[in-house]
Amino acid sequence: MTDLAEDFRRTTAPYRRAVDEALDRYTSSFIRGNGSEVPERLRAAIRYSLLAPGKRLRPLLVLLATEACGGEWRRAMPAACAVEMIHAYSLIHDDLPAMDDDALRRGRPTCHIEFDEATAILAGDALIPLAFELLASELTPPEMAAACCLDLARAAGCRSLVGGQMDDLLAEGQARSLEDLEHIHRRKTGALLRVSLRLGGRVAGAGLDELAALDHYGTSLGLAFQITDDLLDCCGTRAELGKEPHKDAAHGKLTYPRLLGIEGSRRRAAVLVEEACRVVEPLGDRAELLRRLARFVVQRNH
Amino acid sequence: MTDLAEDFRRTTAPYRRAVDEALDRYTSSFIRGNGSEVPERLRAAIRYSLLAPGKRLRPLLVLLATEACGGEWRRAMPAACAVEMIHAYSLIHDDLPAMDDDALRRGRPTCHIEFDEATAILAGDALIPLAFELLASELTPPEMAAACCLDLARAAGCRSLVGGQMDDLLAEGQARSLEDLEHIHRRKTGALLRVSLRLGGRVAGAGLDELAALDHYGTSLGLAFQITDDLLDCCGTRAELGKEPHKDAAHGKLTYPRLLGIEGSRRRAAVLVEEACRVVEPLGDRAELLRRLARFVVQRNH
Repeated sequence: MTDLAEDFRRTTAPYRRAVDEALDRYTSSFIRGNGSEVPERLRAAIRYSLLAPGKRLRPLLVLLATEACGGEWRRAMPAACAVEMIHAYSLIHDDLPAMDDDALRRGRPTCHIEFDEATAILAGDALIPLAFELLASELTPPEMAAACCLDLARAAGCRSLVGGQMDDLLAEGQARSLEDLEHIHRRKTGALLRVSLRLGGRVAGAGLDELAALDHYGTSLGLAFQITDDLLDCCGTRAELGKEPHKDAAHGKLTYPRLLGIEGSRRRAAVLVEEACRVVEPLGDRAELLRRLARFVVQRNH
Repeated sequence: MTDLAEDFRRTTAPYRRAVDEALDRYTSSFIRGNGSEVPERLRAAIRYSLLAPGKRLRPLLVLLATEACGGEWRRAMPAACAVEMIHAYSLIHDDLPAMDDDALRRGRPTCHIEFDEATAILAGDALIPLAFELLASELTPPEMAAACCLDLARAAGCRSLVGGQMDDLLAEGQARSLEDLEHIHRRKTGALLRVSLRLGGRVAGAGLDELAALDHYGTSLGLAFQITDDLLDCCGTRAELGKEPHKDAAHGKLTYPRLLGIEGSRRRAAVLVEEACRVVEPLGDRAELLRRLARFVVQRNH
């Protein structure tokens, strides 16, 4: 790992620890509910996937966006956890046999392997309303809660996350253009990254200019993130990734390295990162961690 | 069909027609979004399942509850459609091979048969956030939208709808008690019926007493509904049901007829319906259609 990446990890450790604690807390009590009412197997599957070690990139974006807009990051924790729940659900369902059919995720058996397919479908299904429950019950005032529910619903829906996954499945094996590829990724991974920033901004009471800057940052970051993902799949090892590499090529998927070459992909990621950093300049020093995060994203090795 | 049922159908036809029109409208434009951004196959699968001919029982409960509490039923249309979206998603996922493995639903091929398994999973996944998008964008004031999001999230979540489905899968083939059975149904079907009434009440600005009466009505109606479902599965024909009968027995499922006998089940359903009608007496004439709906539910033949 580079010094930059190590340094970023150290600086953001308190945020990530707080996210892990909050995720644990919300899925122990299931928010004001009596935990005993949730079937134990379902709760175990939800926690297995949601609390699995991870980068917590999306929650971090929520919290850092709140900070960048002058808010107290701890207030944004419900939104941070809600976004991670949507992310976790999408991974569980994407891994299913009928979808990407993956047996490993973050170095551990995927949810349907560790439990079974029915339980994995239900755990994913349960995480979606849980995210909205969190936003609607923990964010105040209600105007802000409703606005956050609407943003998250759009980002998780058929025009964004689910639509992108559908496109991705339909596009497999078909040679297509860079434009198609970016369209898929903007929806499949980009929308959730962008809404993370937007929710963080909303919690801080950000104005339209700030929300627009966060949105632009999120778009560039999202594409840079995807390019890095593609590069890792094509050049990484099983030990680094915690899953099988070369799955994209095996599935005949369109990727950045296939379209732009390895060096061309690296260059494009670097340009996008600099763009992301530039657009949050007006937010000043408070956005410093967002800039460091963007540089970290393209240097990660898993 | 009995005269009572025929009469009820005729009276409520305008409500059901308005629901069908609204469901069609919301999934044509996908709420303020540009319809063209939704992958066509995904939109087709969503519409195939959501717009399939059906009783529209849950939307009807929303609209009639609004009316029973003195509100204008058309104002509750977003909530009515949101509940139907959650119901449709749960049917799509319940029918999947890894779950109940059903090939027929309402006399037509189930979603994963008509399309494919991946598309069916994604169509279900997309309907959940779409329901919240509808509530958060179409209901005002925002306090009410947030309260409705919270209610629906709880009813669709791991303590209710999904938890009940998990229990149901785990309970298959195990002899258990009436108490267990009612616990499963209270969650699996009851929670969504109850929240339909609650959302309808909220749109009308119902007070706590009215919400409590609606809740009690919903609990009794939900159990009566389930008993009738079990009776239809055990005594109905394929033509009446639009799906294979005797699936419960084939799966070794615990049912009311198995526990109480056919006559005992009918008697229990009748008692529950009378209870439902009694608890909404304080709402007066405005609740007349709710009372007729309860009597209709146990007399239906599909």
